[in-house]
Amino acid sequence: MRLVTYRAEVSAAARLGALVDTTVVDLALLAASAGQELPASMLEFIDLGPQAVRSTSRLLDSFKGEWPVGTALPVQNVKLLAPIPRPRKNIFGIGLNYVEHVAESSRTLDTSKELPKQPVIFSKPPTTVIGPGDAIEHNKEITQQLDWEVELAAIIGTRAKRVSEADALQHVFGYSVMIDMSARDCRRAGQWIYSKGQDTYAPFGPCIVTADEIPDPQVLDLSLAVNGVTKQSSNTRHMLFKVNTLIADISAGITLEPGDIIATGTPEGVGAGRNPPEWLWPGDIVQATVQGIGELRHPVVSV
Amino acid sequence: MRLVTYRAEVSAAARLGALVDTTVVDLALLAASAGQELPASMLEFIDLGPQAVRSTSRLLDSFKGEWPVGTALPVQNVKLLAPIPRPRKNIFGIGLNYVEHVAESSRTLDTSKELPKQPVIFSKPPTTVIGPGDAIEHNKEITQQLDWEVELAAIIGTRAKRVSEADALQHVFGYSVMIDMSARDCRRAGQWIYSKGQDTYAPFGPCIVTADEIPDPQVLDLSLAVNGVTKQSSNTRHMLFKVNTLIADISAGITLEPGDIIATGTPEGVGAGRNPPEWLWPGDIVQATVQGIGELRHPVVSV
Repeated sequence: MRLVTYRAEVSAAARLGALVDTTVVDLALLAASAGQELPASMLEFIDLGPQAVRSTSRLLDSFKGEWPVGTALPVQNVKLLAPIPRPRKNIFGIGLNYVEHVAESSRTLDTSKELPKQPVIFSKPPTTVIGPGDAIEHNKEITQQLDWEVELAAIIGTRAKRVSEADALQHVFGYSVMIDMSARDCRRAGQWIYSKGQDTYAPFGPCIVTADEIPDPQVLDLSLAVNGVTKQSSNTRHMLFKVNTLIADISAGITLEPGDIIATGTPEGVGAGRNPPEWLWPGDIVQATVQGIGELRHPVVSV
Repeated sequence: MRLVTYRAEVSAAARLGALVDTTVVDLALLAASAGQELPASMLEFIDLGPQAVRSTSRLLDSFKGEWPVGTALPVQNVKLLAPIPRPRKNIFGIGLNYVEHVAESSRTLDTSKELPKQPVIFSKPPTTVIGPGDAIEHNKEITQQLDWEVELAAIIGTRAKRVSEADALQHVFGYSVMIDMSARDCRRAGQWIYSKGQDTYAPFGPCIVTADEIPDPQVLDLSLAVNGVTKQSSNTRHMLFKVNTLIADISAGITLEPGDIIATGTPEGVGAGRNPPEWLWPGDIVQATVQGIGELRHPVVSV
């Protein structure tokens, strides 16, 4: 399933939907029409566990594309929000997780040339999250080095504490796209939360594709373009620490919970790694895609 | 007011109380007895804003210590939880924020000798939080260098975005005590979330003292003892970046929200700074105190 959080009208509440071709089907309303019950938010749905994914998938199939009146809308007629508009904790970000990106970072930033021996983990507060199409804020009083990073995001489905690499992917609810915006000149004594944690620095969406449809997250093309010019183009097979390793590693010390988001790192091609470096400015358009999931498209605006 | 989150019995729900001398007064029940309404959780109470603090204080005063039957319990008879048992996002931690601690850190850790020019910010997930008396987990497969850090915690009361230093303290709901537990051997490429973000690494409490009772947060003694031996003893006047500066600085890029917690850094005397270094082991007892707020006391246990 391709799950979205959407608003039917500007003032309407956020609701949980499934994207079927170009139609958004409201899951709570569809379930009600079948005498069943489903929640109206993504986090509540994730909390229901893997069985709910399977039964909801069957429920959708049972309608064969004939949606009861009032349960479906064309995707063009709704506003898609971030799939999880308000995470319950900071997003886990992974730094220096693609080999070529480690090399480019060491050339222009203060990071080491050597590949990290363990995942480099930082975080982005829930206030960084914006939905598809929302504006990325550029505050010139704070940064002159706003940079892009396309990433595969893994969303945790079930509580994970000290899980093995072999079992780790069973804890994934699904996958999405995240842009890990970074103000390179806001890093402080090596800590990245301020440079990567500012408001609007986590464009997220357009949907979550449930894990059953992405059995191997390490074979996905991902790319990013600025003003139509491709800047990053790689494949998740080049991750240094794969998704299962990241989950096993974090969960060794930090319990992962349903709805937690791991932004799994970015490949080479960021602005800081270019010669000369390139930065984002108000008026720029950033587009990011992960194969099989979808595309994000965001304007950069002055604030 | 001294506000606590407590449980009357093992299986009871967490509730909001005011600690008056040695009595915990249930605020929702007390309000109901007066025909008023107050929420049963700290976060909901914080959301009500400063006016609710003033009116609740008046409500408490109006009873002159004669609590209606069923609204009050001796503090010895309840289990105190962390004042905010489950923060809505990661705790903001501040590193290297006391002058002498910067010096001791540079001697034994990988940090710079120079004073930071801007606050060094990291984060601790909500899963780090434990309440008064709860066990701090020592996982010897992960760390052999578990360390202590007593800190003043500031709890945000009202949304703060780009606030000035002059206005910053108006956004504080209150203050509490936090121990910023740190596994020194778990730092990675400079990022601290893994070393400071493991389960149980944020003992928090025993209460929140509302900001009206602490007009100046920069005059408070704070100390920490291990097995009864004092290891840290300083005063918040030695903070490099004061609470108002921290709030102004973070809020320049990251919107602070009601219920957000800032752990404002630790003074000298941590285990890593001793010669030879000292670490915590199962069986140790850690006690931390901030003047006018209260004491935390936690056993370290093997897991």
